[in-house]
Amino acid sequence: MIRINAYHSPRCFGYSGASAGAAICKIIRDEGPISRAELGRRTGLSKSTISLHVERLLNLGLVAEETVPSGKRTRLVFNSEAGYVVAIDLGVTSVDIALCDLGGTIIHHEERSILVSEGPEKVLAEITSVIDAILMEHEVETNRLYGIGMGIPAPVEFSTGYPINPPIMPGWHKYPLRQILGERYQCLVYIDNDVNMMAVGEMQYGVGRGIENQIFVKVGTGIGAGIILSGMLYRGAKGCAGDIGHISLKNSDELCPCGNKGCLEMVASGRALARLGTKLALEGESHALRKILDEGREITAKDIGDLASQGDLLCVSLIRMSGEAIGEVLAGLINFVNPSLVVLGGGVAGLGGRWLTTIKEVIYRKSTPLATRGLDIRFSELKSKAGVIGAAALVVDEVFSIDRVTQMVSQEG
Amino acid sequence: MIRINAYHSPRCFGYSGASAGAAICKIIRDEGPISRAELGRRTGLSKSTISLHVERLLNLGLVAEETVPSGKRTRLVFNSEAGYVVAIDLGVTSVDIALCDLGGTIIHHEERSILVSEGPEKVLAEITSVIDAILMEHEVETNRLYGIGMGIPAPVEFSTGYPINPPIMPGWHKYPLRQILGERYQCLVYIDNDVNMMAVGEMQYGVGRGIENQIFVKVGTGIGAGIILSGMLYRGAKGCAGDIGHISLKNSDELCPCGNKGCLEMVASGRALARLGTKLALEGESHALRKILDEGREITAKDIGDLASQGDLLCVSLIRMSGEAIGEVLAGLINFVNPSLVVLGGGVAGLGGRWLTTIKEVIYRKSTPLATRGLDIRFSELKSKAGVIGAAALVVDEVFSIDRVTQMVSQEG
Repeated sequence: MIRINAYHSPRCFGYSGASAGAAICKIIRDEGPISRAELGRRTGLSKSTISLHVERLLNLGLVAEETVPSGKRTRLVFNSEAGYVVAIDLGVTSVDIALCDLGGTIIHHEERSILVSEGPEKVLAEITSVIDAILMEHEVETNRLYGIGMGIPAPVEFSTGYPINPPIMPGWHKYPLRQILGERYQCLVYIDNDVNMMAVGEMQYGVGRGIENQIFVKVGTGIGAGIILSGMLYRGAKGCAGDIGHISLKNSDELCPCGNKGCLEMVASGRALARLGTKLALEGESHALRKILDEGREITAKDIGDLASQGDLLCVSLIRMSGEAIGEVLAGLINFVNPSLVVLGGGVAGLGGRWLTTIKEVIYRKSTPLATRGLDIRFSELKSKAGVIGAAALVVDEVFSIDRVTQMVSQEG
Repeated sequence: MIRINAYHSPRCFGYSGASAGAAICKIIRDEGPISRAELGRRTGLSKSTISLHVERLLNLGLVAEETVPSGKRTRLVFNSEAGYVVAIDLGVTSVDIALCDLGGTIIHHEERSILVSEGPEKVLAEITSVIDAILMEHEVETNRLYGIGMGIPAPVEFSTGYPINPPIMPGWHKYPLRQILGERYQCLVYIDNDVNMMAVGEMQYGVGRGIENQIFVKVGTGIGAGIILSGMLYRGAKGCAGDIGHISLKNSDELCPCGNKGCLEMVASGRALARLGTKLALEGESHALRKILDEGREITAKDIGDLASQGDLLCVSLIRMSGEAIGEVLAGLINFVNPSLVVLGGGVAGLGGRWLTTIKEVIYRKSTPLATRGLDIRFSELKSKAGVIGAAALVVDEVFSIDRVTQMVSQEG
């Protein structure tokens, strides 16, 4: 049935007892500061019922009172300092780990070099040693750690937290990350695809605040998208929605390891730019790129971006090629999804304005006029922090879902 | 915020009074037959509250009692015969008009030839004369006509019901269809894109029943898609989501009236097949197609399908070409959206098995293995009726939304 989710869920039904308290907590979290009187109008609950539930939330420490400067009236705010979450953003060659408060503010941030290809045991040992050190340094007691959110560069079955057939992460298939972290830290653990986490971060705290329909595109070593539709993260039937790296391009026959020709990743990703730059250097097409190899370094997408901004025409053309390919694929997806915003993030987004301009130009030329009416295309605001901030936001939203808070309030009440 | 819609809506809050009655009506409609005791367990409301609301719904005629064969206990069902809706599926050259009961069953169906290009006044005059005749024949009193649902081959701003810049419908831009029909028939009117209606029909009564994430693809004169995500029709930021006809193909440079090259519609639609078939006939490439022109007829996609099924190799290759183009575009969209089901409908879907097999073959080759795991690709079950059945389903869902039924129950209570 249409809109079945909004009307049909048992959660929508007559909040009474603890679940009314949880719903009140949700409103305070989303809309606070808010007065008790406003809560009453907003919910239709009586003054005494509101008072009872607010009292419990105050006792739990989830909510705090704030005095309005003008007088004696107080308003209620969600108490971001009531506890902590740990946010992890796992990349292919590095991991970001952050301790955050319940408002998603980063209190402590660490980055470590790892190799996901070395398998989950080794990587997890590194991650847990960093978490242990951070928790100790900030004297976080176990009962104040509400949850852990972790983004990984792989498709994830969200309900179990299992990585599913990750192409670049041998040994991680169905690895019980959630169980291991949950048992060690005695808290709730949520695992999701890294780009999904970035999309959530950007929607809640970045350039996508308050925008219902948006697509976050990460262009790094690989290319992926996170999809926010009707204000919700959309994961797809098997959790692999947004896997745009293997969409086929019009004018490319580059063979991809996936078996097809002309995949987006083969032309537009950071790995592709590095590969093509290296090829041109070896063929003697670019003196500037050759110099990098002669210095004993590997050519990276960043080198190409740096040279392009110095006016190197060959590097400019490589960047245009990446932008055109991304623009072409996004033009089709924009026709299909009709979003209000496309956010570009990931390492290659650091290539800057020339790259973004090419992407925009292709999108405005190739998408239908109606689909691009009012469409905004921007760089990520949270940049390299989008992943950890998103992981923190996602875990806080899950931990303070109506159902979870209902449990907390029941135990208190 | 994540899942903001499910938790955040004021509708989710403490159903009391009339809104509790509306919510009970919704449960009976979705899950009935259901007993009063089950309703109590399902909602947490007291026996007397349930009784009160059920009494009102019985008085309104929205709900009926059904005696369980075994004994005295009765169960409640939604009374599909309590009233009627009119469903309209407007095409480019014809219109389907149906009188349906509240369960979406077609009571009376008419089809008329029209030309949308002749403008809204003329088309609407034809439509209203048909509706008038049907209502008179079935002696439908004004107060038993609950609503009208109408699908049109154009982008639609759903909140107002306005067609927006319809490329093939001059004179229809922002035409006040909803107001005109609403004033004439004194009922609620909902206008949406025709393919959206088909997608809703197929999800509720066709091959897509109970499937959360599915894409309906209509291949007729043009090509469009209706998108169902998380069990809800997804319309996009400006109501034009699903506009896939102008996504660009890999191996095509056919110039499209939209200004781009290689658009899907230029190769794979019914119009494209007819155009290409005519071209080949005129160039003397096909004796069989030439014969149609010599008989003074125009070549249609159906002719090409018929000849292909008789073994005409040129027509087989045209059908393969259409299937390959559709498969290529869908392969990318499937990677992006990761649906469980793709439904193919519209006139060209009548081309049959060979066309569908080509589409499937390309999708399974070009989509990622994870995105196609468990993916089903099928023909529409409702066929040419998908549009009217969907329009009826959509208008019934809107008319019996919690908010609307709350109004009805308030007036009764």
